[in-house]
Amino acid sequence: MARDDATLIEALTHIAGREGVRVGEQVKLLDHGYHTENLAARIMVSPADTQQLAAVVQCCAAQGRSLVPQGGLTGLVGASASRPEDVIVSLRRMNRIVALDRESMTITVQAGVTLAQINEAAREAGLEFGVDLASRDGATVGGLISHNAGGLRAFRHGMTRQQVLGLEAVLADGTVFRDLNALTKNNTGYDLKQLFIGAEGTLGIVSCAVLRLVPQQRAAATALLGLADLRAGLEIVRRLRHAHYDRLLAVEVLWADYAACVRDAHPELANLVFEDCPLSLVVEVAHDDAIDMAQQLETLLESALEDGLLEDCIVASSGTQRERIWLLREDSDAVAHQGAHQLSFDVALPVPALDGYVRDLQAAFRSFDASIKLFVFGHLMDGNLHIMLAADTPLHDRYADIEALIYEPLAAVGGALSAEHGIGVEKKAALARYGDPQRLALMGAVRSLLDAKRTLNPGKVVD
Amino acid sequence: MARDDATLIEALTHIAGREGVRVGEQVKLLDHGYHTENLAARIMVSPADTQQLAAVVQCCAAQGRSLVPQGGLTGLVGASASRPEDVIVSLRRMNRIVALDRESMTITVQAGVTLAQINEAAREAGLEFGVDLASRDGATVGGLISHNAGGLRAFRHGMTRQQVLGLEAVLADGTVFRDLNALTKNNTGYDLKQLFIGAEGTLGIVSCAVLRLVPQQRAAATALLGLADLRAGLEIVRRLRHAHYDRLLAVEVLWADYAACVRDAHPELANLVFEDCPLSLVVEVAHDDAIDMAQQLETLLESALEDGLLEDCIVASSGTQRERIWLLREDSDAVAHQGAHQLSFDVALPVPALDGYVRDLQAAFRSFDASIKLFVFGHLMDGNLHIMLAADTPLHDRYADIEALIYEPLAAVGGALSAEHGIGVEKKAALARYGDPQRLALMGAVRSLLDAKRTLNPGKVVD
Repeated sequence: MARDDATLIEALTHIAGREGVRVGEQVKLLDHGYHTENLAARIMVSPADTQQLAAVVQCCAAQGRSLVPQGGLTGLVGASASRPEDVIVSLRRMNRIVALDRESMTITVQAGVTLAQINEAAREAGLEFGVDLASRDGATVGGLISHNAGGLRAFRHGMTRQQVLGLEAVLADGTVFRDLNALTKNNTGYDLKQLFIGAEGTLGIVSCAVLRLVPQQRAAATALLGLADLRAGLEIVRRLRHAHYDRLLAVEVLWADYAACVRDAHPELANLVFEDCPLSLVVEVAHDDAIDMAQQLETLLESALEDGLLEDCIVASSGTQRERIWLLREDSDAVAHQGAHQLSFDVALPVPALDGYVRDLQAAFRSFDASIKLFVFGHLMDGNLHIMLAADTPLHDRYADIEALIYEPLAAVGGALSAEHGIGVEKKAALARYGDPQRLALMGAVRSLLDAKRTLNPGKVVD
Repeated sequence: MARDDATLIEALTHIAGREGVRVGEQVKLLDHGYHTENLAARIMVSPADTQQLAAVVQCCAAQGRSLVPQGGLTGLVGASASRPEDVIVSLRRMNRIVALDRESMTITVQAGVTLAQINEAAREAGLEFGVDLASRDGATVGGLISHNAGGLRAFRHGMTRQQVLGLEAVLADGTVFRDLNALTKNNTGYDLKQLFIGAEGTLGIVSCAVLRLVPQQRAAATALLGLADLRAGLEIVRRLRHAHYDRLLAVEVLWADYAACVRDAHPELANLVFEDCPLSLVVEVAHDDAIDMAQQLETLLESALEDGLLEDCIVASSGTQRERIWLLREDSDAVAHQGAHQLSFDVALPVPALDGYVRDLQAAFRSFDASIKLFVFGHLMDGNLHIMLAADTPLHDRYADIEALIYEPLAAVGGALSAEHGIGVEKKAALARYGDPQRLALMGAVRSLLDAKRTLNPGKVVD
């Protein structure tokens, strides 16, 4: 162990206690989550509160050591990846729900609280968090905010940014930015906390937040729809939105190869996939005291069937069947069985451009390398597609070419090369290449204003 | 006219044409809107598009002239106030609706488009803007964004910030920041456009925006409720929220003196005020194809009456009666008849703290100067109160003392000294006094990063 490591470890132990510091093998033994380099650092410190966190940052900054903040390690772009010389700051010990205000529909939480924990507390008050996503059990508040998480319901309640009322963050010099506003309306000058939302820990380490909650909606009915094409899907979405916008919980789209791949990984899903349909939708509507929403959905689907928009349809008749429909949608890990090498992309396009984009993409990959399998699913109303590639031959050495196939068509339609996963290390080169130079320069200037020495999460997002 | 004025006028005329430049009396002849100093500048330029706007900013910056951006002049804190040497940049000529996308529910508009114009276009597609406010006919997009306007429905759809998907702004050096994103999800680096939202034109001049729209909701029923106290009002809100959250259009609260004052200004409102009720609520619910919402509201109100929560109640039985209820709520200009001198404040508090705050405030003003009349109304679910003072003796010379009465109690409950009106020139001293010094310093640093010479709207918000 290097001498400066020993000095730092002693100082960190003084701040966070023995239970708050891990070194070497103690770090490697942990689950590294979704990125293999998450636990590459030699030292991990887990402060118990904001004061300890501030002291940790101050201590590392003074010794010229860079910090990598980590939460539930469910991020998909390597924003938590560390190098041996970095110090990992895990927020997982800061997992306290500070306050829940039923009347104002807000919750105040430390950064290490998981989405599942928020919802457990909120649902006791008939409320819930407006953002939901597949990694709900592991994703923490700090990560949700730092990645501006999107998920299944962005079309209704917006992204995580729209849920953040107040925020506390530790800055690169160890001072604490504190704006734990709990009000819907607060126009007292520039809303600086917006800077920390979606900044992936490069401008400050989020330590605490006040989040707005929304009235809880329970599912009344979940259906899996088999479609001939996306045009039909969009017409069904139009009808759903017109009739039940405020009771729509999800409209998810699965291209056939994705659905088949998840089905093949789970015997219990054998009968759940429509063999001849190029597309499926998962649709869920909320319970309503005043109307039979299950009946409403069935009526709407029957009329869609009569109008030739629907090829086939399963309305879940039990909790088990509902869970299976959701497993089909959410178990994207199943793609791992489809090839020794995988890549994952997350793009957004205007909804009307989705259909053409996917068709062109499939054709482009067929000519690029027909052995690469393409699995596409996403959040239809947000125009957000997750594109997963699997192949038996290496993909990383062709990364720039593959990125070009996926990203180049986006510019013409106003698409985004990251919809909700963020930039991290994995999409940084693409952002530098395809992003607007003026925006990138201003991002760098803002970063320099807040962290000139790049103490916080260096090498991520922007230089 | 000063020689440098002549040079500048010539240059501006070259950029914006003769019809785009007003000088001296031509400026003073216009309606100065809500602030007497709005038209104090000698020169006003009205660019026709972003290119002209950028050239105007560049030209003024080169000549060391400061710029004051103006829209509908409906702001209430003097953010558009000008000095003789400033150049007013009116965005009113940039009033084009660029695009409306039904499928993605977005609208792209130039900065001079009014809220009423947006809604006129959106409603043809069954959509509307998520923010509504009393000055809807005059307020422009640039002003709504620069002030992060709130209004009647913030509890449902959030503030204007939550409606802005994309934004274009001209920076202090005349370069154009362009992020006309139209996607719900776009996590490609720091969301820098957030900086310009609520910055009151001090960091850039908003020239164009992409706004999200929401499905249009038509009023199914509007009611005026007479209450004995706020506790009863909050219980009614709880019930309304539980049963009809997604169909609630408004829950506005009027203290008795405010309601009486507006009534006295309009003969047709004579029978609309509950004489013995210290508080009234205006409640509006949306039409729903599947349920009779007027019936639902009446049932809820009947049960509130039985439970002793309601003293009296009028459910509008005609369009005229509905308009009268809204006139009672929205004609705050009526306060002008109540004294030669007026002041207006706009605070927010956590909802549970509202009742105590208003009681204490009334008592505090009685001991400070019982001749000052206090008119209070606001947006109940946001905890947002508008406090208007009227007196026959001057108030401005006692401004700091009056501010102290209104602002000092806020700190203990986590209130805000500006909920939705912003800071401008009028609340700047208060923000400097009551605001967090670290946040203020960071605000100044961000301003220096974007406009070191304070070319844009100098003297507003923060130094």
